Amino acid sequence: MKSLGIDIGGTKIYAAVVAENGTLLSEIKKYATPKTRKEIEQILKEIIQNFEAQVDVIGISTAGAVDNTNTKILGSTGNLCIDYPKINFMKLSSKKVVIENDANCAAWAEFKLNPEKNKQNIVVLTLGTGVGGGIIVNGQLLKGKNGAAGEMHFKMSRNKRRQCTCGAYDCFEIYASGTGLKLTAQELSGNPAMTTYDVIEGVKNKDELCSKILQTWQNDIIDGIIGLANIFDPDYVILSGSMAQFVDYEKITLSVNKEIVTTPTKVIPAKFANNAGLIGAAILAMEKIK
Amino acid sequence: MKSLGIDIGGTKIYAAVVAENGTLLSEIKKYATPKTRKEIEQILKEIIQNFEAQVDVIGISTAGAVDNTNTKILGSTGNLCIDYPKINFMKLSSKKVVIENDANCAAWAEFKLNPEKNKQNIVVLTLGTGVGGGIIVNGQLLKGKNGAAGEMHFKMSRNKRRQCTCGAYDCFEIYASGTGLKLTAQELSGNPAMTTYDVIEGVKNKDELCSKILQTWQNDIIDGIIGLANIFDPDYVILSGSMAQFVDYEKITLSVNKEIVTTPTKVIPAKFANNAGLIGAAILAMEKIK
Repeated sequence: MKSLGIDIGGTKIYAAVVAENGTLLSEIKKYATPKTRKEIEQILKEIIQNFEAQVDVIGISTAGAVDNTNTKILGSTGNLCIDYPKINFMKLSSKKVVIENDANCAAWAEFKLNPEKNKQNIVVLTLGTGVGGGIIVNGQLLKGKNGAAGEMHFKMSRNKRRQCTCGAYDCFEIYASGTGLKLTAQELSGNPAMTTYDVIEGVKNKDELCSKILQTWQNDIIDGIIGLANIFDPDYVILSGSMAQFVDYEKITLSVNKEIVTTPTKVIPAKFANNAGLIGAAILAMEKIK
Repeated sequence: MKSLGIDIGGTKIYAAVVAENGTLLSEIKKYATPKTRKEIEQILKEIIQNFEAQVDVIGISTAGAVDNTNTKILGSTGNLCIDYPKINFMKLSSKKVVIENDANCAAWAEFKLNPEKNKQNIVVLTLGTGVGGGIIVNGQLLKGKNGAAGEMHFKMSRNKRRQCTCGAYDCFEIYASGTGLKLTAQELSGNPAMTTYDVIEGVKNKDELCSKILQTWQNDIIDGIIGLANIFDPDYVILSGSMAQFVDYEKITLSVNKEIVTTPTKVIPAKFANNAGLIGAAILAMEKIK
């Protein structure tokens, strides 16, 4: 079986043909994400027309929560145009189209293409500008009653210290994300112009304050993972996304296992970098037509 | 089918025969929980000998995490004797014996005996001296890789304010439990002798400080439920246990739905009071031999 995987992000759309074992069977095509729904639909149609004769199914990774039938977007979709959720994805092809949330697609890729087939309980956190969550429970994606599950908005503080992009205060996302690192840097340095980049550069140059900022950010990530490990008793917690390269996996695993009341777990880096969404959507779609 | 349900708690052991629909078919027998493993085994043997001819299976609700084969206790068991987990529950009867964690049994009873059969995603919090968690995902108990999942030890604060009974700091349990209410009372009143009972009495007498203490405790419960609702997108969050009678369900539901990014949920009281563990264990055991 072959699948066309498409990853629709706020700035880029990626597409490639994917085999059942997750191997890419074509080059990855890249497009800038247009600003209007009509233009996005146009690009999707073009991509699908180019590839659909070669594939059995089409899998689309998208921002936003996706319903339990993998056909509709339920929630807001961040950087995409406001009427993006109205796109009728099912009508884009004569082949079956399967859509799923991007963090869930990434989690599915990490789970299904893991060589240890008996690992059926995995938490995947995508640390980028925000934090995405994809959770595998007994070999199934955790979707909840309507498909919106896996949102990493649990509170880290009782006293309204930081407002999250979701509107509420002190969510894990606003501490553990790249935005979180920036806010921690600004708080600890007193410099409102300090950036994530400044912190990473500073750490490279062995700057003490920058190291402390990175540690504080990492401690927030540890605290969040402790809660998730106590809730899910997972085989692995996998960190993915652009910010996941800046953490110390050994230290995190040790700290987490020291505090949890469930059984020991491992915190490890993702296997797939930027292609996790595309590959995950493609193999999930093949699963759905089996 | 009929099942013998046994609930082993820190102070009492309860037992009764239960029908498939959850109805009690016998009186509930009560025993004080003995202090040694030998004596506990002796009481369990007596109970089982009295009832086993009448039933098809035996379901036991117990403190502690239970493994994924429902035969062994994995973790610590609070108020029970230290070698309690060494009891060979499987050898207590010639009929099949199924054991499960008490909070999971309570969750199973609330889920299976709910008249709304399509509600497959439920979070049950047992608010007592501590906080127990039982989570139903797609109609299955959330157990994790080894069976220890559902522990309500996620952090409520970044700055080590309260040590939890688990040893770590600022777990949901040490804010949302009866112990949590007591600590909140002592913090807000400055009186280190203030008890949960004092707060409840004070609220009855319209004491302003006591009302503020109860509100603060309830706000911590709301904050925890927001996190869980964002993670699980549940149909219901059900509050059970001795402390669940003191919360305002309408206010909690409103506050939770105002902040979550998933789809609206309901926070409701448990249907079963003290018998949830016993009934849940009994009906889970029948499920396992079907």
